[in-house]
This record gives sequence, structure tokens and C-alpha cells, in this order.
Amino acid sequence: MKILLIGANGTIGSAVAKELEQRHEVLRIGRSSGDYQVDISDSASIRRLFEQTGRFDALVCAAGNVTFAPLDEMTAEHFALGLNDKLMGQVNLLLIGREFINDGGSFTFTTGITSHDPIRTGASASLVNGAIDAFVKAAAIELPRGLRVNSISPNVLVEAMPAYAPYFRGFKPVPAADVALAYAKSVEGLQTGQTYHVG
Amino acid sequence: MKILLIGANGTIGSAVAKELEQRHEVLRIGRSSGDYQVDISDSASIRRLFEQTGRFDALVCAAGNVTFAPLDEMTAEHFALGLNDKLMGQVNLLLIGREFINDGGSFTFTTGITSHDPIRTGASASLVNGAIDAFVKAAAIELPRGLRVNSISPNVLVEAMPAYAPYFRGFKPVPAADVALAYAKSVEGLQTGQTYHVG
Ligand SMILES: NC(=O)c1ccc[n+]([C@@H]2O[C@H](COP(=O)([O-])OP(=O)(O)OC[C@H]3O[C@@H](n4cnc5c(N)ncnc54)[C@H](OP(=O)(O)O)[C@@H]3O)[C@@H](O)[C@H]2O)c1
Ligand SMILES: NC(=O)c1ccc[n+]([C@@H]2O[C@H](COP(=O)([O-])OP(=O)(O)OC[C@H]3O[C@@H](n4cnc5c(N)ncnc54)[C@H](OP(=O)(O)O)[C@@H]3O)[C@@H](O)[C@H]2O)c1
Repeated sequence: MKILLIGANGTIGSAVAKELEQRHEVLRIGRSSGDYQVDISDSASIRRLFEQTGRFDALVCAAGNVTFAPLDEMTAEHFALGLNDKLMGQVNLLLIGREFINDGGSFTFTTGITSHDPIRTGASASLVNGAIDAFVKAAAIELPRGLRVNSISPNVLVEAMPAYAPYFRGFKPVPAADVALAYAKSVEGLQTGQTYHVG
Repeated sequence: MKILLIGANGTIGSAVAKELEQRHEVLRIGRSSGDYQVDISDSASIRRLFEQTGRFDALVCAAGNVTFAPLDEMTAEHFALGLNDKLMGQVNLLLIGREFINDGGSFTFTTGITSHDPIRTGASASLVNGAIDAFVKAAAIELPRGLRVNSISPNVLVEAMPAYAPYFRGFKPVPAADVALAYAKSVEGLQTGQTYHVG
């Protein structure tokens, strides 16, 4: 398969690349790193990406930004990043990417455990993760041509603990390699409308 | 209690009013109907509402618009209504309303069954409902002063079937009076961070 991997240089993305490159052609995409660049918060940038890559069989997004801040300090503006970037960024990858994806192709998005196991400063992250997990369920039943869509909802990663440990006390971190398996299941399996919880 | 009820004239809101007015002072609020007016998609309008009502003990929102359309025809613009109105409208009721709510007060929001039981044309509805259910879980753990927040996630209502039946074939409609009970549980009980699924 020809697989577009957005966020290929990241903590999750680099493990996904390692897993999928064993069997597939993986195009490494980042905001500034990689073979191709995209800013998922910008629809025009997404369309330019697909015009450069051409048709493909699977798209994996392991990118997406939200604001982490104490709820006390948050206003609507703090939620805007998550809505424009991790949330509508991934929705737009499907809405625009469906014009370029081959029959039977798949979209795999990234959410996270905070949708149902919330943390301090995580209100926007929870909101966005819950939104994408629900969107995936709904979009799956309307997609034509055997197209599929799933999300991966990881616990905090072992590899991210140096930065995230203070926010995830008591969470059992999951190795990136285990998380990467869920992406392989989504891309190489046949399920759709699923959220794979890892860890 | 002094309870602000947004959407008091609607299918759900009128049943909630009937339930809560038996025991509480209910301020009926609508976009154009009611004792007070607000457009929840407009932060300035929300702030003006609270300046008019003064401090309160509970806020119930039984309002919120999203676009229903076949996924095939949807672009990012079709998702904007849901993000600005039902999603950020309810988030902003909390972000702004917390300045006006008394200690121990509660916010009760409305989502819906499509977060996990999707229907044709419902991708935006699912997304928004999933977002609010997750937001409620996260916001609850950070709210100060004994403030609480829950969401009510109803099945389609018996009273809405004349309009909605074609979209909800096979769903078992729930009477508005049963849905109204969940709002009473949220407002008059002590739970927080919950989504009450009704029907
Ligand atoms: N790390 C965890 O423990 C964990 C757990 C659960 C969920 N998640 C979620 O997984 C996603 C990725 O996390 P991560 O820790 O792997 O991130 P990361 O290490 O910071 O890597 C992010 C990657 O995404 C790219 N990127 C960032 N913003 C982008 C944008 N607007 N458009 C396109 N590409 C963009 C970056 O490109 P450049 O390399 O060019 O900068 C980078 O390759 C996030 O949504 C995060 O919430 C992470
Ligand atoms: N009906 C169902 O079967 C069902 C099932 C599950 C979930 N829901 C959800 O429950 C919510 C209410 O549904 P409903 O059927 O009761 O609606 P409805 O009968 O159409 O009533 C909507 C109410 O909300 C008010 N309103 C509309 N837009 C508003 C805005 N932007 N700002 C402030 N107020 C606004 C209206 O005011 P005016 O009276 O002044 O026009 C009206 O009072 C919706 O989010 C819907 O998705 C409904």
C-alpha cells in the first residue's frame, strides 16, 4: 500500500513508520520535517499535500495540537486551537482526502485516553478526542467505495513520560511500539468506525 | 433554586420546564421566545443574558443547532454551525456562566444518542455530542466551589417523531417527560461529570 503518514517524525508517528515501513510504501509527512509538509489546520495546505502525493491507499494522522491550560484560565480562544487543528484538521483530512483515496482505502486518526479519563488542564484535549472518536463512528457508516475510518486512542506513551509524567500520575504508560500495532490493525485490517484504545 | 433554562420553549425544554417548575424558580430563555433571549453561538449575547438574570443556582441548556446533511455533501463549512452553536455555545455557557453561578451550582447540557449510535446525515451531530460528553467529564474535575456539570444524552423523543422518524427508523423513542427526569437528577442531585443516557 501507499500510505500517507502525517506526523511521521513524532513520538507516535516514528513508531508507526517503523511498523508500517516493513510492508508498505510510507510517505513521511510533517509540519516542517519529512518528505512532504502540511499544516492540518489549513484546508488549502491539506489540498496542496494531496496534489503533491497523488492518489493513495491509506492516510494515518499522528499529529494534532490542542491547548493545555487550567480550566480556570481558559476562555473560548483557548479551545480554538484544538477545534481548528486536532479536530477539524483530522475531519478535513477525510473531507478533502476522500477525493484522492483509492477504493477500499482507510483513514486512521489519533485521539487519546483523556476523552474518558480526564486530566488537569485537559478540558480541550478531552473535548477534541471525544469529538473525533464520535465522528469516526458516524462517518464510517456513510463512507462510499469501501472506504474506512478509525481512531487510535492511546494512553500516555512511555516515550512521552519525560515531558508528560506530571500530568499523568498513576496512568500506566504504553510503549510506542504497542500503539503502532493499533495503527497497523486499522490500516491492514477491515474494521471501520472503531476506536482502538491502547494501554 | 433559581434555574436558567435555555430552550424552554422547545420539545425537550418545555418538558424540563414542567418538571422543574414544580419545585423551583425557572427563568424561561429562548432565542426569540421566553422571558429572556440569548443566542448561545454568540459569547457577547451569553454575557448580556447573565447580566440581565443576575446570579443563579443552576443552568440547563436544552438548545443547540448542528447541520444535518449527507456526509458526501459536507465540507468544513457544514461543521462550523455545530462547532459554534451546540458545541462552543454550551462550553461558553460554562466558561462565562461560572462568573455568575452560586457555590454548589450546576450546569446541565444536552447532547444526544448519535454520539455512539450514529445516523445518516448525522456526522456533525455525532461529533458535537461526543465532544460535549467528553468535555463534561473533564471540566467536572477542575470546577471550583462545588460547581458541577453533566450532560443529558437522549434517544429521539416521542414528541419529535413526526419530524425525525425517517432518520431514526428502529430507534425506540423516549417520552419527553422521561428525558426531563434526567435533567432533574442532574440539577437536584449531587453527581458531576456524568452523561445520563435516556432511552
Ligand atoms: N505522546 C503521547 O503520549 C500521546 C498519547 C495519546 C495521544 N497523543 C496524541 O497523538 C498526537 C501526536 O502526539 P505525539 O506525542 O506523537 O506528537 P509529537 O511528538 O509532538 O509529534 C507531532 C508530529 O506532528 C507534526 N505536526 C504537528 N502539528 C502539525 C500540524 N498542524 N500539521 C501537520 N503536522 C503537524 C509534527 O511535525 P514536525 O516534525 O515537522 O514538527 C510532528 O511530526 C497528538 O494529537 C497527541 O495528543 C499523544
Ligand atoms: N428532539 C429530540 O428528539 C432530541 C433528541 C436528542 C437530542 N436532542 C437535542 O436537544 C436539543 C434541543 O432539541 P429540541 O428538539 O428540544 O429543540 P427545539 O424543539 O427545536 O427547541 C429549541 C429551543 O432552543 C432555542 N434555541 C435554538 N437555537 C438557539 C440558540 N442559538 N441560542 C439560544 N436558544 C436557541 C429555541 O428558542 P426559540 O423557542 O426562541 O426558537 C427553542 O426554545 C438539540 O441540541 C437537539 O439536538 C433532541
